[in-house]
Amino acid sequence: MFTHTHALQYEAKPDGPDANYARRLQEVLGGQWGEMTVATQYLLQGWNCRLPGKYKDMLLAIGTEELAHVEILVTLIDRLLDHQPLKPDSADHSKESAAAYGQSNPQHAIVNGGGAYFRDSMGLPWSGGYVTASGNLMADFHYNATAEMMGRLQVSRLYNMTDDKGVKDTLRFLIARDHYHQMQWLAAAEELKADGLDNIPVPAAFPLDEEPPEFAYAFLDASDGPDAANGRWANGPALDGTDNQLTARPIAANADAPILPPGDPRLYGTPP
Amino acid sequence: MFTHTHALQYEAKPDGPDANYARRLQEVLGGQWGEMTVATQYLLQGWNCRLPGKYKDMLLAIGTEELAHVEILVTLIDRLLDHQPLKPDSADHSKESAAAYGQSNPQHAIVNGGGAYFRDSMGLPWSGGYVTASGNLMADFHYNATAEMMGRLQVSRLYNMTDDKGVKDTLRFLIARDHYHQMQWLAAAEELKADGLDNIPVPAAFPLDEEPPEFAYAFLDASDGPDAANGRWANGPALDGTDNQLTARPIAANADAPILPPGDPRLYGTPP
Amino acid sequence: MFTHTHALQYEAKPDGPDANYARRLQEVLGGQWGEMTVATQYLLQGWNCRLPGKYKDMLLAIGTEELAHVEILVTLIDRLLDHQPLKPDSADHSKESAAAYGQSNPQHAIVNGGGAYFRDSMGLPWSGGYVTASGNLMADFHYNATAEMMGRLQVSRLYNMTDDKGVKDTLRFLIARDHYHQMQWLAAAEELKADGLDNIPVPAAFPLDEEPPEFAYAFLDASDGPDAANGRWANGPALDGTDNQLTARPIAANADAPILPPGDPRLYGTPP
Amino acid sequence: MFTHTHALQYEAKPDGPDANYARRLQEVLGGQWGEMTVATQYLLQGWNCRLPGKYKDMLLAIGTEELAHVEILVTLIDRLLDHQPLKPDSADHSKESAAAYGQSNPQHAIVNGGGAYFRDSMGLPWSGGYVTASGNLMADFHYNATAEMMGRLQVSRLYNMTDDKGVKDTLRFLIARDHYHQMQWLAAAEELKADGLDNIPVPAAFPLDEEPPEFAYAFLDASDGPDAANGRWANGPALDGTDNQLTARPIAANADAPILPPGDPRLYGTPP
Amino acid sequence: MFTHTHALQYEAKPDGPDANYARRLQEVLGGQWGEMTVATQYLLQGWNCRLPGKYKDMLLAIGTEELAHVEILVTLIDRLLDHQPLKPDSADHSKESAAAYGQSNPQHAIVNGGGAYFRDSMGLPWSGGYVTASGNLMADFHYNATAEMMGRLQVSRLYNMTDDKGVKDTLRFLIARDHYHQMQWLAAAEELKADGLDNIPVPAAFPLDEEPPEFAYAFLDASDGPDAANGRWANGPALDGTDNQLTARPIAANADAPILPPGDPRLYGTPP
Amino acid sequence: MFTHTHALQYEAKPDGPDANYARRLQEVLGGQWGEMTVATQYLLQGWNCRLPGKYKDMLLAIGTEELAHVEILVTLIDRLLDHQPLKPDSADHSKESAAAYGQSNPQHAIVNGGGAYFRDSMGLPWSGGYVTASGNLMADFHYNATAEMMGRLQVSRLYNMTDDKGVKDTLRFLIARDHYHQMQWLAAAEELKADGLDNIPVPAAFPLDEEPPEFAYAFLDASDGPDAANGRWANGPALDGTDNQLTARPIAANADAPILPPGDPRLYGTPP
Ligand SMILES: [Ca+2]
Ligand SMILES: [Ca+2]
Ligand SMILES: [Ca+2]
Ligand SMILES: [Ca+2]
Ligand SMILES: [Ca+2]
Ligand SMILES: [Ca+2]
Repeated sequence: MFTHTHALQYEAKPDGPDANYARRLQEVLGGQWGEMTVATQYLLQGWNCRLPGKYKDMLLAIGTEELAHVEILVTLIDRLLDHQPLKPDSADHSKESAAAYGQSNPQHAIVNGGGAYFRDSMGLPWSGGYVTASGNLMADFHYNATAEMMGRLQVSRLYNMTDDKGVKDTLRFLIARDHYHQMQWLAAAEELKADGLDNIPVPAAFPLDEEPPEFAYAFLDASDGPDAANGRWANGPALDGTDNQLTARPIAANADAPILPPGDPRLYGTPP
Repeated sequence: MFTHTHALQYEAKPDGPDANYARRLQEVLGGQWGEMTVATQYLLQGWNCRLPGKYKDMLLAIGTEELAHVEILVTLIDRLLDHQPLKPDSADHSKESAAAYGQSNPQHAIVNGGGAYFRDSMGLPWSGGYVTASGNLMADFHYNATAEMMGRLQVSRLYNMTDDKGVKDTLRFLIARDHYHQMQWLAAAEELKADGLDNIPVPAAFPLDEEPPEFAYAFLDASDGPDAANGRWANGPALDGTDNQLTARPIAANADAPILPPGDPRLYGTPP
Repeated sequence: MFTHTHALQYEAKPDGPDANYARRLQEVLGGQWGEMTVATQYLLQGWNCRLPGKYKDMLLAIGTEELAHVEILVTLIDRLLDHQPLKPDSADHSKESAAAYGQSNPQHAIVNGGGAYFRDSMGLPWSGGYVTASGNLMADFHYNATAEMMGRLQVSRLYNMTDDKGVKDTLRFLIARDHYHQMQWLAAAEELKADGLDNIPVPAAFPLDEEPPEFAYAFLDASDGPDAANGRWANGPALDGTDNQLTARPIAANADAPILPPGDPRLYGTPP
Repeated sequence: MFTHTHALQYEAKPDGPDANYARRLQEVLGGQWGEMTVATQYLLQGWNCRLPGKYKDMLLAIGTEELAHVEILVTLIDRLLDHQPLKPDSADHSKESAAAYGQSNPQHAIVNGGGAYFRDSMGLPWSGGYVTASGNLMADFHYNATAEMMGRLQVSRLYNMTDDKGVKDTLRFLIARDHYHQMQWLAAAEELKADGLDNIPVPAAFPLDEEPPEFAYAFLDASDGPDAANGRWANGPALDGTDNQLTARPIAANADAPILPPGDPRLYGTPP
Repeated sequence: MFTHTHALQYEAKPDGPDANYARRLQEVLGGQWGEMTVATQYLLQGWNCRLPGKYKDMLLAIGTEELAHVEILVTLIDRLLDHQPLKPDSADHSKESAAAYGQSNPQHAIVNGGGAYFRDSMGLPWSGGYVTASGNLMADFHYNATAEMMGRLQVSRLYNMTDDKGVKDTLRFLIARDHYHQMQWLAAAEELKADGLDNIPVPAAFPLDEEPPEFAYAFLDASDGPDAANGRWANGPALDGTDNQLTARPIAANADAPILPPGDPRLYGTPP
Repeated sequence: MFTHTHALQYEAKPDGPDANYARRLQEVLGGQWGEMTVATQYLLQGWNCRLPGKYKDMLLAIGTEELAHVEILVTLIDRLLDHQPLKPDSADHSKESAAAYGQSNPQHAIVNGGGAYFRDSMGLPWSGGYVTASGNLMADFHYNATAEMMGRLQVSRLYNMTDDKGVKDTLRFLIARDHYHQMQWLAAAEELKADGLDNIPVPAAFPLDEEPPEFAYAFLDASDGPDAANGRWANGPALDGTDNQLTARPIAANADAPILPPGDPRLYGTPP
């Protein structure tokens, strides 16, 4: 259960309106790697977590914080939309605004009446499919770390797309939190390993001796780039705690060309 | 440019048809974490890679191998669809087949005439949005490692959902490759760091002194689970190479409740 | 069964081409609240209606009219696309057209060859999921009233985004029909109530004594905005015909924190 | 900003596992009219609301409560998934379980490892496009009332699809809240009108004298159902506060068949 | 503009309810190749057609007929849903119904209250993206012919999935119309050619001498299947009216491996 | 199984960067009719093909070639993105770039860091639903011919939207291959007929005497366009090899208005 306070976790006050930039910010609100994704993902992983204690508690704490980031971004976008040119000519007192008009999102005005929504910078709605909660915390924590990397990367790029000091101040906060959260998920993944709850390869509980070993340690080269095997991934000990060595060899076929039987004639496929 | 051989990288021959299981296998062919995703993702990351050499070469090699896995799964599903009951009564010589009929995918017959397609186990089409190529290899390699974890996890679950020896043999191959690929991406991420190309937090090139430091090292607790801060993520040195310490504190507001200005009356929002 | 006449229900003739505005008009053709939605929705509600007579007859009449609105908008957009600049420089004889070029939809030229299509102003395809036909006319009529409000709101906003007299004339017609249709659905909802076919809360046939009464009449306040309970919704008699009073109280937990049992080990979740 | 408590707003404890029913419950978690929709919709309407005071405060309070409903449904589904048959034969100790196996969602096991997710009962991901925040509270409150009608309708139907007493107890709570929320949004719409903030037709601020009056008060009959005009919608005074009378007439064309000019030859359409 | 009559173009009366089959029929109502697609596609092609006369008139006539097919299928599905088991046990008086229960679509009951909707047999909403109106009638007519082939193929398969005489009678009508419509579009494509409006390759107006001729007449073999070039496509005169000969040769690279320049450092890609 | 060479099938080197045009090219990479579609479609048709020999071999050869076209387009877009203005003012040294800035795709920078992705020119992700493999080669080959027509049409339009000589050179190659591939699929469809594998109407194996003959040869006119029946499709011998004549008549109803029985009261529809 949640309670809400109107006060913001961090200030979200641009120096002035900028409909072009409002459209771009939608990416980190409603895009695949935006705040909606991490908020609902960490909460879902927390609710679904069948292991009580620190991991579950932490997931629900972070997910709840991310809801505040959603709120911050919505507020920032709303204020950037305080003025949006409705026609090309009103946009055209300068070439700058001509360019910006072209980039602005018409749905911000037509659909939302000057407000944010849950879509990305190209207008694609946010999808519940962005959320992963696999039931395996090791896989999920690696995904969460990735999400924070992608998030920090995108906000850093957006940071270079504006000169608005108020906007940049808010972005600095989000970048710092993404910094912390990267460390958090990597630390949590390490702790899972230390707690004996999983290991590489994930899931550790699948028995390694069910795997054909000739395929578990070899880089199979299927392209003619000369340096493909010149990395740690094809040399040195395996990273799974066994004493196998990583190697490389060209890709090869291990089975004949398949011959499929005729199809069911009631399906009217091309007859054989 | 590619060339193709009809011979398969690995055998894909079930002992018998099983339309129920064919539907389930669609998840690892056309689902978010399926072979279509990793094949097209590694190729796109390779093509887009602006750094020539081992990373680019490796990406294109692996992406090409994954195309062979797509082929293997399509073939496996096709054979599992050699017989699909068209009506409930034809499915009902046993309770087992009644159950299986219920789970089978009607599009396998109506749309494909007894063949696989690029959708997941619930019929959702594969999406180009599943593919991430951020231009930042460190973020991408973490994502790739995650993809292989999710892939191996799903195939391992599918392994427990069938007794067909032929199917299980193919799945063992896929599980082994996902095992290797997990190690590969983690090794490649380490090597990027060793090569000085990026670091934690990603992207390392964004200057840390732009971040407000009070938000970069603190777990902010927004839930009442008692153990949320009892982990490495809230204790000990930072994981970013600085000498900061990780700490925890309750979440708190840092800005007043926002007051938005009135909207543009030409948009007919509720007037203030 | 339908028949069609080439003559239009209302004129759709802009004074001149405007590819920027053509893109914007897509919202009320192929967007969530556009003419495609209401046309197919009212027809589907009519076809699915299991109650013969005035409601079914009216639904099919209105749905058929809305098909004419689809035709009007397609024609309007087609004419606005009579000229679309194919390159930035051909767009740039004035700053106005530079702005407009930026906003124009490239698919109008590349995909459609200068014609409308069933997508919204950001290029998202119209979805059958926009259509609701719940089988309960009271719920559906409220939804229909909403759809006409959203439609009239969007067209009114679009009205302020152009100076083209021909376009504005067509929009005035659409606004007038949305005006009438709002009244129509609200009147129909009242008539359903008068006919004894349903009531508040919808569906009236679900027995009220199955509900826990302490949750059926109370505003539960979960945020710290001071005025949340200062409205009719937390004061005065219930709107459901019972003699209950509406009240307000802070939100509160009514159950312990959930503890989930361990998962099935064959699914390789994190073990407890 | 939000804070979270692990205690639930209401109990969510089924008497036993039921994977078939878990799949069905996804509809009211991640479907168009599910708890994800109302939670994020009311919050977004509240954040975007440019009118400070009771409406904004109330929206944020209710949106926050709905997050607790999301949590309740996730927990309920998780527990219903405590056991999910992995193969048809394990499902087949009775005919009942054969039927149930057929209905169960394979992604609950393969993708989530025995947990809920943000998709509907047919596996379609929840979409940010389900959320409407138009900037016009009158239109939005009608939509919100509709959402609660659809929600209560769907939960009432689900109530008749199970005999599990624990599930039914949770559903009764949700039905009661949907009961209250229906009254709340209808009361709020009335209050907006009383406060002079909008009126029928929405948006009242669009000047009525811009509308062609012959289209604002007439039912236009386009179908041959004999009773289409036998309702309040075609008889009696208008519902917009003017003294116009509602009437009916057959639909008629008001413009000639359109003739489109030839297309741009550089687009290679069929030449005229 | 359209008018509607309640009488059906053809009877749609199943002998009895069958929720399993109702779900399957959704494919040809709301699937990619269903009646919604052809109805809206032919209408859109007709409205967008910039060439007045027989082609435009014919397109609008056929599109209007297809609306009647939508109506027929909705009615058929509605009647098949006259009874839908709500629980597994009510489905289980026989093994047949256990199988059928598993296949039934829960949204038919939960969302629609026993009615059809615009989704396919796996619950994917119909998409405006299914509709193609390219502005080039030759390309569109080939697409239309394909649509009728796919439609007839799917209905023929569905014909083999039921024993209900009423259903089969309706399907025979639909199959016959798809038969006629295949001939119609092929004839229309021939007539376009005879009228000198387009030709192979489409669009004929693009000048052939802009093409590099060595790539316009050769089968390039990129796979090791021995018979790939043993067909008309690699032997004999070209089909475009020129006197070129079709040939075959192995695929070959014609350009060096690409080297991409370094990316913009402000985007924080991996530096070169 | 595939192998890859870094060398390109054809050069993909623009004369200079052009972010506006890069966005447009996405249409033929990741749009419905783009290279991703044909590559994966021909491969899937080949893998699923149950008839060994020339058709299967040819499908796999062409599908593999199309993968090289995907690679070419990705490379072309990457190079066009070598410079993308990050802010309106940096775009505004000329009116041209103001226009171009407005059209550029912000995700190219924010999400991809200056690279292509699998979406269309409006940012809609490529969908596995674009791929059709019906199991019936005659239907599929007609679809493939259509795909090449649409592809060549779109590339020809794009050819007229740029003056960049390098880009135009690559497009000429793609146009030539689409030229050849149109002929190829039409030839293959003819050969299927000559080989006795299918015929018009597709599927020929469905017995014609199951069809009601009065609906198999008649154009049914449902619109008032005067020339709708003045074409080959309503005159002359049938195109299916029978000696029937094509005719025309107005559309007519053949069944009464449907009356649906009352719904299940447990679904709370409006009672009759
Ligand atoms: Ca965040
Ligand atoms: Ca793989
Ligand atoms: Ca309308
Ligand atoms: Ca609720
Ligand atoms: Ca039809
Ligand atoms: Ca191609």
